Amino acid sequence: MSDADRLARVALSHLAEPGDVRVLRLVRQLGATTVYEGLCAHGGLDAVLDGMPDGVSDGAGGAGVDLAVRLGAVRPEQRLEQARRAGIRFVVPGDAEWPTGLDDLADQPALHQRGEVPVGLWVRGPLRLDEVRTAVAVVGARRATTYGGSVAGDLGQDLGSEGWTVVSGAAFGIDQAAHRGALAAGGPTVAVLACGVDRAYPVRHSELLDQIGDQGAVVSEAPPGATPTRVRFLGRNRLIAGLARGTVVVEAAVRSGSLNTAGWAERLSRVVMGVPGPVTSALSQGVHELIRTRAGLLVTSGAEVREAVGESGEHLLAVPRAPLGPRDHLPIRHQQVLDAVPVSRGATVETISRGAGIGTKEAGTALGALARAGLIEQSGAGWRLSDAAWRADRAEERA
Amino acid sequence: MSDADRLARVALSHLAEPGDVRVLRLVRQLGATTVYEGLCAHGGLDAVLDGMPDGVSDGAGGAGVDLAVRLGAVRPEQRLEQARRAGIRFVVPGDAEWPTGLDDLADQPALHQRGEVPVGLWVRGPLRLDEVRTAVAVVGARRATTYGGSVAGDLGQDLGSEGWTVVSGAAFGIDQAAHRGALAAGGPTVAVLACGVDRAYPVRHSELLDQIGDQGAVVSEAPPGATPTRVRFLGRNRLIAGLARGTVVVEAAVRSGSLNTAGWAERLSRVVMGVPGPVTSALSQGVHELIRTRAGLLVTSGAEVREAVGESGEHLLAVPRAPLGPRDHLPIRHQQVLDAVPVSRGATVETISRGAGIGTKEAGTALGALARAGLIEQSGAGWRLSDAAWRADRAEERA
Repeated sequence: MSDADRLARVALSHLAEPGDVRVLRLVRQLGATTVYEGLCAHGGLDAVLDGMPDGVSDGAGGAGVDLAVRLGAVRPEQRLEQARRAGIRFVVPGDAEWPTGLDDLADQPALHQRGEVPVGLWVRGPLRLDEVRTAVAVVGARRATTYGGSVAGDLGQDLGSEGWTVVSGAAFGIDQAAHRGALAAGGPTVAVLACGVDRAYPVRHSELLDQIGDQGAVVSEAPPGATPTRVRFLGRNRLIAGLARGTVVVEAAVRSGSLNTAGWAERLSRVVMGVPGPVTSALSQGVHELIRTRAGLLVTSGAEVREAVGESGEHLLAVPRAPLGPRDHLPIRHQQVLDAVPVSRGATVETISRGAGIGTKEAGTALGALARAGLIEQSGAGWRLSDAAWRADRAEERA
Repeated sequence: MSDADRLARVALSHLAEPGDVRVLRLVRQLGATTVYEGLCAHGGLDAVLDGMPDGVSDGAGGAGVDLAVRLGAVRPEQRLEQARRAGIRFVVPGDAEWPTGLDDLADQPALHQRGEVPVGLWVRGPLRLDEVRTAVAVVGARRATTYGGSVAGDLGQDLGSEGWTVVSGAAFGIDQAAHRGALAAGGPTVAVLACGVDRAYPVRHSELLDQIGDQGAVVSEAPPGATPTRVRFLGRNRLIAGLARGTVVVEAAVRSGSLNTAGWAERLSRVVMGVPGPVTSALSQGVHELIRTRAGLLVTSGAEVREAVGESGEHLLAVPRAPLGPRDHLPIRHQQVLDAVPVSRGATVETISRGAGIGTKEAGTALGALARAGLIEQSGAGWRLSDAAWRADRAEERA
């Protein structure tokens, strides 16, 4: 990308709100320099839109936008230099580091009035965004339960220890637990913020954000110094979804920003996953809805997340099986006889042989072997299961 | 059905094990009297099978079955009369009370060597099986957690209070909780046993079984007096699935009889459902596998079960929504301005108007209204969200 393009994008990053579909679509269609020069020449976005061919401004809405009010105050070279001195780079489409997954945001219908490919990303930290290949977003409630926090931490740790990248929003609750899990495993992690990457929001997470800035990457569409606002949170969610191959929601109430992120993952054809929890927990209700009505995949571990998100055939899991019980080691005929031995009141060899569909003599031999193995015991005139056998059967929870 | 047919079925119920595919398939294809007379004439099932046309004995297995050892000891009239005196009826295919859902078991491949339509059902209790139209099986682990028991009880109570029938196995844990929930709501409930309906297994549930016998129905394929064995438990599971329109598994370890019941529900094209729980609980692991890999529906309440099982269009649920927050009552333009107000550090009217994409004057008017509503507050030279607004936003868990 040319310097002119980059500088125009720096300026537009300061002038337009993150996720402002009208501006971002225009930039993508006409180029950043054209839009920026139009803004400078006409003194406002509406004037620029008026001068555009038919169709370009479709869906732009009619508000009297006045983006250029402080147009003169933006000095892009200076902003870029200030950022550089603070260890912050500005990554734009076309750069080697540009995460091309975000290009999927082009022409998607807006969600909560946000959308489109950002003009660029402000990034702090050693992790290069183009090296984030197997990234999973782990998101969820701020006021997570101990359970949710623990599950998110385990997910982060599992993904991190496998070299996968954990993407989240550095918020309280699930977000921080997922980041910390990844950091603990020495894994790469990306925090996407609603404010500038030089700011710590929430303030109590300034240490966490420093650590992510040291080991991973802190990313924002909003320029350095920007404060967090609701539109910036909503715009931020689409980047979390777009940067990852799949999004896992760990805990979420029914009306939740994490579900907004999951919605973006859905429309970007990413894998949408949810971790279940007690149905009695309000903070699992949103996740259960996601699985029930929006085809989210139920996942219970990092391994299952990796199976769901990995290339087909990769990371396939064996179906979990309980360890074999004592009866699994018996010959089939002995198993059949054992299956016909009653639990409580004893039964005669004749009754048992009939139940097993086996001759009396053969059943008698099997019963002898089963008694020697401690699986059955005498009860009155007959045989019944021993406590040990019955306990082993019950351990299999078969009824 | 003729008396001869019924008596033949009584005899076969005493001679064959519940779910013995070989005998039951033969009965369905040739009629009970033919099979019974064959047994009496030839002195054993193998001899009967040998005399049958080709193909009938397919898949019968080769064991030297000797069902007729004690053939002479079965006196069907006497058995039927004894049962009648104990308040037990014998319901056979063709009876008005026959639950025709069980006919779906015909010709299904066997599961755990069990299968097919039973020769008849021994029933105790006032509930007529043909009046069980909207039945749901609620099954699960014997050693359920407090959580699982509570959820199963709630499901039973919800279904019972809506007049739906709860079918289960009267076992410890989930089964008993579901039955008790239904009984507490005065709803119909059916216990399907692996032993005779005159016996209490487990013994500690004799009061529960009496109560079900007084208000609902206790059902078994095994004749009165029969003891519970493993094959009878496995045979019993298919009846639980077949008697219900859908099966809900509440808690289940990975190797579990409830999953066997769910397997039968699946092959009988019933609705298969699972209640999620903490991923850290071994007793939810089997349920999560059912949802993950066997397309079980995730359900979290009786209402969701009724929606899943009901006729299409019946019992449709509204998607749960959180209550509206303070911002939902504002005009759209004021919402846009509010969305652009920062959380912590104050911003000027100019900054906010730019963020909102609205002219300075209009933004100023909106900010006045928002301040009067207590949603924003002065901070230095600018405005920021008030604690109340921020708390309300966070309550929506949007990030």
